[in-house]
Amino acid sequence: MSSTFGENLKLTVFGESHSEAIGMTLEGVPAGETIDEIELREFMERRAPGRDKLSTARREPDVPEFLSGLFECVTTGTPITAIIKNTDTRSGDYDDIKDAPRPGHADFTAHVKYNGYEDYRGGGHFSGRLTAPICIAGGIVKQILKRKGVSVKAAATEIAGVEFGTFAENGFEIKIDEAEKEKALAKIEEAKADGDSVGGIISCTVTGLAPGIGAPMFGGVENVIAQGIFGIPAVKGVEFGEGFRAARLRGSENNDPYIVGENGDIKPASNHHGGALGGITSGMPVTFRVAMKPTPSIAKAQDTVKYETKEKIEMRVKGRHDPCVALRAVPVVEAVAALAVYDMMLGR
Amino acid sequence: MSSTFGENLKLTVFGESHSEAIGMTLEGVPAGETIDEIELREFMERRAPGRDKLSTARREPDVPEFLSGLFECVTTGTPITAIIKNTDTRSGDYDDIKDAPRPGHADFTAHVKYNGYEDYRGGGHFSGRLTAPICIAGGIVKQILKRKGVSVKAAATEIAGVEFGTFAENGFEIKIDEAEKEKALAKIEEAKADGDSVGGIISCTVTGLAPGIGAPMFGGVENVIAQGIFGIPAVKGVEFGEGFRAARLRGSENNDPYIVGENGDIKPASNHHGGALGGITSGMPVTFRVAMKPTPSIAKAQDTVKYETKEKIEMRVKGRHDPCVALRAVPVVEAVAALAVYDMMLGR
Amino acid sequence: MSSTFGENLKLTVFGESHSEAIGMTLEGVPAGETIDEIELREFMERRAPGRDKLSTARREPDVPEFLSGLFECVTTGTPITAIIKNTDTRSGDYDDIKDAPRPGHADFTAHVKYNGYEDYRGGGHFSGRLTAPICIAGGIVKQILKRKGVSVKAAATEIAGVEFGTFAENGFEIKIDEAEKEKALAKIEEAKADGDSVGGIISCTVTGLAPGIGAPMFGGVENVIAQGIFGIPAVKGVEFGEGFRAARLRGSENNDPYIVGENGDIKPASNHHGGALGGITSGMPVTFRVAMKPTPSIAKAQDTVKYETKEKIEMRVKGRHDPCVALRAVPVVEAVAALAVYDMMLGR
Amino acid sequence: MSSTFGENLKLTVFGESHSEAIGMTLEGVPAGETIDEIELREFMERRAPGRDKLSTARREPDVPEFLSGLFECVTTGTPITAIIKNTDTRSGDYDDIKDAPRPGHADFTAHVKYNGYEDYRGGGHFSGRLTAPICIAGGIVKQILKRKGVSVKAAATEIAGVEFGTFAENGFEIKIDEAEKEKALAKIEEAKADGDSVGGIISCTVTGLAPGIGAPMFGGVENVIAQGIFGIPAVKGVEFGEGFRAARLRGSENNDPYIVGENGDIKPASNHHGGALGGITSGMPVTFRVAMKPTPSIAKAQDTVKYETKEKIEMRVKGRHDPCVALRAVPVVEAVAALAVYDMMLGR
Repeated sequence: MSSTFGENLKLTVFGESHSEAIGMTLEGVPAGETIDEIELREFMERRAPGRDKLSTARREPDVPEFLSGLFECVTTGTPITAIIKNTDTRSGDYDDIKDAPRPGHADFTAHVKYNGYEDYRGGGHFSGRLTAPICIAGGIVKQILKRKGVSVKAAATEIAGVEFGTFAENGFEIKIDEAEKEKALAKIEEAKADGDSVGGIISCTVTGLAPGIGAPMFGGVENVIAQGIFGIPAVKGVEFGEGFRAARLRGSENNDPYIVGENGDIKPASNHHGGALGGITSGMPVTFRVAMKPTPSIAKAQDTVKYETKEKIEMRVKGRHDPCVALRAVPVVEAVAALAVYDMMLGR
Repeated sequence: MSSTFGENLKLTVFGESHSEAIGMTLEGVPAGETIDEIELREFMERRAPGRDKLSTARREPDVPEFLSGLFECVTTGTPITAIIKNTDTRSGDYDDIKDAPRPGHADFTAHVKYNGYEDYRGGGHFSGRLTAPICIAGGIVKQILKRKGVSVKAAATEIAGVEFGTFAENGFEIKIDEAEKEKALAKIEEAKADGDSVGGIISCTVTGLAPGIGAPMFGGVENVIAQGIFGIPAVKGVEFGEGFRAARLRGSENNDPYIVGENGDIKPASNHHGGALGGITSGMPVTFRVAMKPTPSIAKAQDTVKYETKEKIEMRVKGRHDPCVALRAVPVVEAVAALAVYDMMLGR
Repeated sequence: MSSTFGENLKLTVFGESHSEAIGMTLEGVPAGETIDEIELREFMERRAPGRDKLSTARREPDVPEFLSGLFECVTTGTPITAIIKNTDTRSGDYDDIKDAPRPGHADFTAHVKYNGYEDYRGGGHFSGRLTAPICIAGGIVKQILKRKGVSVKAAATEIAGVEFGTFAENGFEIKIDEAEKEKALAKIEEAKADGDSVGGIISCTVTGLAPGIGAPMFGGVENVIAQGIFGIPAVKGVEFGEGFRAARLRGSENNDPYIVGENGDIKPASNHHGGALGGITSGMPVTFRVAMKPTPSIAKAQDTVKYETKEKIEMRVKGRHDPCVALRAVPVVEAVAALAVYDMMLGR
Repeated sequence: MSSTFGENLKLTVFGESHSEAIGMTLEGVPAGETIDEIELREFMERRAPGRDKLSTARREPDVPEFLSGLFECVTTGTPITAIIKNTDTRSGDYDDIKDAPRPGHADFTAHVKYNGYEDYRGGGHFSGRLTAPICIAGGIVKQILKRKGVSVKAAATEIAGVEFGTFAENGFEIKIDEAEKEKALAKIEEAKADGDSVGGIISCTVTGLAPGIGAPMFGGVENVIAQGIFGIPAVKGVEFGEGFRAARLRGSENNDPYIVGENGDIKPASNHHGGALGGITSGMPVTFRVAMKPTPSIAKAQDTVKYETKEKIEMRVKGRHDPCVALRAVPVVEAVAALAVYDMMLGR
């Protein structure tokens, strides 16, 4: 099922941009885990729109309402469902996309797949708004992981071609060059002024994982994370460790030798591999980078065609849109990574 | 389950590098599909070792033996199982990896996960040899897809940092610059002479897909292909369409406008998106690129540590190994892509 | 996942008896199916409590509130979520089951599995109330099936040992002897007066199914229906066609010969088999019977033990309970049967 | 997928009655479990044909050949595959079923589902012979369970209407009345002499399970066992604990009170429930009974119709068949029960 993610920990996401509510059900969380709703809301805040001038002007509360699975703030072991009611939704903004697909969006492909019955308002089930329920689930899991010593941290490290962040110390940290970051943010403003948008790259590291988590072949660390990450709208690529750079290295450069760690256990001396070999964690941080395309919603005129009449028209996408989705997607990447690794930890 | 791939079409891969046999079971293939075993063997030949001086010196027949699911060369609708017996296997070559993990391989992570019970010989279930059963399955599916007008074509397009191939005509073709390719192949020879190895990039395009195939969120075209591709040993990254390059483009550059095609239907005018939007095919070729790390098995000395004694040793990986796995992995990428798209076509 | 049912059509049920809401998500319903909410409520009414003197005194509206997946009463192809808010819930009634398990309920087993973190109020996720979301899903599917000529009909045919109904005409109908039924209903009154409860048997027939639906081995008609039916609280047995009676027949009695039907196609002449052979429909009605145990909640004193102190106590289950769940479970059996057969029709 | 069973422990069964081989792949078995192949063969022997005058005259070795997943008789943690080559297969015996379906078999339904491409020889994938791979998997798991103190024991307890066995001591034992059993066996001889067959009932008990194993709703003990058991050819019904008898009891009779056990823990005082409440084990034996129909293959003349010509013919099923499958199915019931409970134990 396409709106479902995970095997031992199963997330189901439901809702459309303008339906009554959006939400999620999370199955497989063990009983007895305390969920701090304040901490969860703070996590959710990180992806919420309207926080700063670079994000959309919409101001949504995005406070999850729990329907089941929690009893006095503690998980019961049965499915956890939480919803966010859709309130500040100016449907009128989307009236013109009923008739013609927006370039770069899923409007056309959904129209074909669902024979014209798709909920076209605001992109329906394909809207970036659906990443909010992913963050509810991921936020819950991040709290559980934290108690187990596992930390999931992502950051935008490149925007509009300006790289301002890198993995440091074998991936235990993400270092940000604030001066370069300012340049990158300026590029967003420029694009916005042009009625245009920019893409970016998000780097993510998961630290504190024991070695031996994951599985060979199709159920490994990279497989599961990649499957989840491509569920975030606008993602175009995923790479682990050295990633595409590894294709340009020699084996003697890319292989990580083994040494004996402080605790007397074997461990890799370096982390070109990105924390997993053969789909199984090595004990080093799981590091990966995600390519985000520029926001497809732009004010500039674009060519498109009316579904019915096949009339060629120029479309300027109205509404309030982020000129760079890579910024708001950062907590979503963390959420997916958290879900993926906890799924594997449960199945170990 | 980790050695299983697909939902409507389910591949199960079994075997170890030196077990009695390796093989696969493929469930979900409709009844009535004729399988041409000669054509299948020709496809299998493309990944078989020992074909040229750049591949390993092993010469394995790799002829699949069908145990079930075919009746007079036609699928019966029930599970198809085929095996390849393991014959030319010099176990002695791998004796030293019993005691210490090879850098860049899954030896260490498997050792931890399986508590020392892993079949260490030749990498066991993690061996590149296990891509042969994937090719049996993918070869079967490629024949079925061909009859439906769907073609899956991959090629190495970069080796050792020398790029010699690109997608042409919106991804309908992969163009190769033969002169540059020669330079790249020379780099492999160089590395081999140095007891080293090189990485590369494989480009793949799937043409002939109708629009509307796939699904939103976690079950989309990119999700399923990526999940499968990371099942191929040595893969470190996957990108679709413009991929990581999209992160450096503006929305107005990366969005594909819509036009009316020759047949009167709406279609994208260009293919920056790589054939899928919102996880659903657009009718354009599905194009993706795969980063392959350099072969981890190298003759050069590398540091590692003995499991038991924690003694630090130098290891030179013996045996006959490809200096560039990106060459032999080409048909495996095609196989996975074929399995992924047919799975989605069946579930449409 | 345990609160999930189905492969091509996936139902997820969430909620606890006294949580904020109960509900369900249904994935896999094709786009373009009109849902009549009035008809759905009428179906839901059949399981709602408080309708007659034989049911519990609670009066719950049980009107599903749709959150997603419907756009102007038509399915969009994406997950359908509907909830029922929990309102008339006198939590106080259940205070004593916090400390000691009710005999015949899942209190004890849930307490062990969830380490004491279970939501004990009203049985939590194990409550019969959770059959309401199953009926939302089943009610939606019944409407779709009806348009395809498939009818799902169940009825109580035995209560407290009084059999008053049988399959007639090879399972195309369920015949009820009204006089015998009155006797059976009188037995319920008797039990109620005694502070006790009675069990019963529900018969169900699915007509209008084409031959060839289903699958061999573990994914067949009987497998999927049985897996679903045992998800209804109080079910203790399921049998298809002649069921346990077949164990007492000879092959020559139990086998159904083939004849040529009116339309010139081959069909079974009789229906001892119950509509499926080898897990695949034969074109005859799928007939099965479900054994329901007596309601475990009884006013009579029963022995139990306190979790903490291990003190032996006598418990009289308070609250308003059905003396015979077999009556209210009838639409739930229809709902599960509808979900099961539609799942298989989609996967054909 | 229909020939696949289980979630945390996944069995895939492949092969046809007359294909090259039949076999199974079992995924999810932890590394480090020693498998005694002699003990496995002894278990397999219990279902093998040709052992006594009441079974078929065929004499098949049925020795599983392991292809993968075992290294020096110990599980490696990766998929275990074993096959049985098909040798003693007189294909000629089945020539007439190519043209017309045998009553009571899956010939007709498979013919429709697979559009005439089914492997009709000996029933193909639907043959009782496919229970041999189930026994390989179940036999492996029984050995693992035994080391964990869990025992799975089944026995035929009724044949041809003669009941000769019952659960004793709350299901900790199955008591057999040998004198009555002789009468039952005589009934088989009688039926055989008449060219006919008889049905029977198999009782099974799983002892040694800790409380708290299983899950609510659709993934519970009864759901999973029932789904698996209906995968055995000829099964028509499954009941747990009192089963259909519970429908005739009052709540005060059927409920099991709680007491304090010898070890100071709470436990049920009796076992009307059959070892699971709410889908979760109670610590009492899991008891269930399985209705097996009479062998459909009988020498007596039966009416059927030719696929092509629609000509009505009389068919006498040739070949060597058991007059009572309930005898040979006993170890298969144990195998399925073992697989089901171990799956749930792994997922706990």
